[in-house]
Amino acid sequence: MRTQVVIIGGGPSGLLLGQLLHRRGIEAVVLERKTRDYVLGRIRAGVLETGLVKLMEEAGVADRLHGEGHVHDGTQIAVEGEMFHIDFKTLTGTPVIVYGQTEVTRDLYDARESVGARTEFNVDHVQIHGADSDAPSVTFTQNGHEVRLDCDFVAGCDGFHGISRQTIPLNVRREYEKTYPFGWLGVLSRTPPVHDELIYANSDRGFALCSMRNENLSRYYIQCALSDHPDDWTDAAFWSELKRRIPDSVAERLETGPSIEKSIAPLRSFVTEPMRWGRLFLCGDAAHIVPPTGAKGLNLAASDVHYLYHGLRQYYEDGDSEGIDRYSERALLRVWKAERFSWWFSGLLHRYPDQSPFDLKMQQADIAFLRDNRAQQQAFAENYVGLPY
Amino acid sequence: MRTQVVIIGGGPSGLLLGQLLHRRGIEAVVLERKTRDYVLGRIRAGVLETGLVKLMEEAGVADRLHGEGHVHDGTQIAVEGEMFHIDFKTLTGTPVIVYGQTEVTRDLYDARESVGARTEFNVDHVQIHGADSDAPSVTFTQNGHEVRLDCDFVAGCDGFHGISRQTIPLNVRREYEKTYPFGWLGVLSRTPPVHDELIYANSDRGFALCSMRNENLSRYYIQCALSDHPDDWTDAAFWSELKRRIPDSVAERLETGPSIEKSIAPLRSFVTEPMRWGRLFLCGDAAHIVPPTGAKGLNLAASDVHYLYHGLRQYYEDGDSEGIDRYSERALLRVWKAERFSWWFSGLLHRYPDQSPFDLKMQQADIAFLRDNRAQQQAFAENYVGLPY
Repeated sequence: MRTQVVIIGGGPSGLLLGQLLHRRGIEAVVLERKTRDYVLGRIRAGVLETGLVKLMEEAGVADRLHGEGHVHDGTQIAVEGEMFHIDFKTLTGTPVIVYGQTEVTRDLYDARESVGARTEFNVDHVQIHGADSDAPSVTFTQNGHEVRLDCDFVAGCDGFHGISRQTIPLNVRREYEKTYPFGWLGVLSRTPPVHDELIYANSDRGFALCSMRNENLSRYYIQCALSDHPDDWTDAAFWSELKRRIPDSVAERLETGPSIEKSIAPLRSFVTEPMRWGRLFLCGDAAHIVPPTGAKGLNLAASDVHYLYHGLRQYYEDGDSEGIDRYSERALLRVWKAERFSWWFSGLLHRYPDQSPFDLKMQQADIAFLRDNRAQQQAFAENYVGLPY
Repeated sequence: MRTQVVIIGGGPSGLLLGQLLHRRGIEAVVLERKTRDYVLGRIRAGVLETGLVKLMEEAGVADRLHGEGHVHDGTQIAVEGEMFHIDFKTLTGTPVIVYGQTEVTRDLYDARESVGARTEFNVDHVQIHGADSDAPSVTFTQNGHEVRLDCDFVAGCDGFHGISRQTIPLNVRREYEKTYPFGWLGVLSRTPPVHDELIYANSDRGFALCSMRNENLSRYYIQCALSDHPDDWTDAAFWSELKRRIPDSVAERLETGPSIEKSIAPLRSFVTEPMRWGRLFLCGDAAHIVPPTGAKGLNLAASDVHYLYHGLRQYYEDGDSEGIDRYSERALLRVWKAERFSWWFSGLLHRYPDQSPFDLKMQQADIAFLRDNRAQQQAFAENYVGLPY
């Protein structure tokens, strides 16, 4: 069998790329290791930058997003019991939209189904062949059968643990990594959010985040030890700790309820260079991971999709390979900026085991400068709503 | 003997405070451990913020500064062989003035002399008594005689190693410190500066700074090991290393010559809290040290002088102690901001022994963000020309 682009990974970046290509008449097959229900069962944050929203519009899948998504004109930062507001709308003219990543994925699956675009689920043993040749192919097994797909290009959208990155020889790629000495304990509860904007809190007991999915579904996080297990934390212990880390005025209004999901995620910064090897292109988590502070993960995958989509269009529509040849360079330029912001914002808000009293003072001074200086707020807001593609 | 304010330390902050008070009819005696010639022999950088320039004007000692100082509308930052400009004038409406700290000190000594204000040199064994009482006094020896000065207030302007800070009991003060794992090797040469603005350079061989005193006196620095000794560095070795750390286009124009001074300074961040104990007030290096990156040391001393001068005027002219009561709080608010900037700017430009490849990428991304983002440049420029008092 033959197609133009094989997309490995049926998460939001693979699906978005597939849908964008489909609408320009470029044939792409999406391969997903799991089932659709499994993919839609993953719980992920969703703070969408304008760039991603525009891509969703271009892919024709933005109706529900605009109907059900929540426009956030700013965010709250809490420190030492006080809270201040950063007004994205005034500073940059642009809000962000809170809309779950799961919903983005669902909309993309529905759209692909309605146009008859091909997604193969339950594929196993995926292998990429001849990525550095003019005739790449992808093989996999499905329901016990071995399948081979010849193609022009392969898009590796299969995440940090996927095979795409690992297909690039070690002597070609350079990897950069930072791990953080703590995790995020997250709780989902069927309660109204405590605030209509996100609250990022720096407290002497560690970081906390008050977030939401919709009017009756809240998502809260607290910094925890990496050695902690979700079972160590009763709901009562979680709520009690959360309340101690946010301003009293907020804690008083917090509606608590049974957790319907509780999990611990480690924090990692990771980038692999280059993001292209021959006819294989890495997108999203396959190429880079950011800590979740600032919600850049999905948005950064979207900017990769943007560069790759335009590169492929340029190739198929104009016979010009400039866009795919410069894909890695362009994508990485933005990746490093978002890595910087996510790393800095994580550093601003968490307690680190090796922080000296001077380091803590620098953290407080950094927050105070953000609170008091408009230029610093402007730089923050431009990063938060998304730097231009 | 009796005076209103005893100022311990005849460096620029003590002299400036004394001169400002004198012009308001408040009597102050300055005590200096060394001779005038010794003090004027110290070589220190001089990049003056507008706030300090205005205080010099108010003290009536700004004529030579305005005549001989060099107005710098911006600065250069070099990285990976390229250079970019940050335009203070456009971003903030304010330049900085390059005028040696030694010249500031000389102008203040001359002014004090011409008005007959009292400065005691060669004083030894200075001790502060009853700082937490209503009747403080200072004793010292001079030419073998013991002298006692009763006063209303004591201003501790005697630097990091002075006795003023140490007079505050350990259970009252809290100290914050960071030392840096490198030093600055500085060379003064009678050569024209290589550029009409300062060049701060980040290179893979470490930091370098091209600075100047005047049209024919240049000051250059390179990051070096703390274990280095100035004698380890021949002039030839210094110039050769400097050239490797700055862009080729700059290195080609560098005029070298014999060093007329060569020394190594360690880098330190330090703050003591509070800056007031009873009737003793700490100013400048007695209370805080910044690493020299960004030239905040003298300017921060000036902002302390500003707050203390206005507090003392309020006390003597209006009988209101609000200004001296809030001195520590107000001064520290600005101190921590300048500490933050100096620490961040040092981190941006130096090589650290424990930097991982990811850390280096973050440093590069931080510099790229400063190069490319106007809001970040604005925040930088506001810090560099001096945050408002």
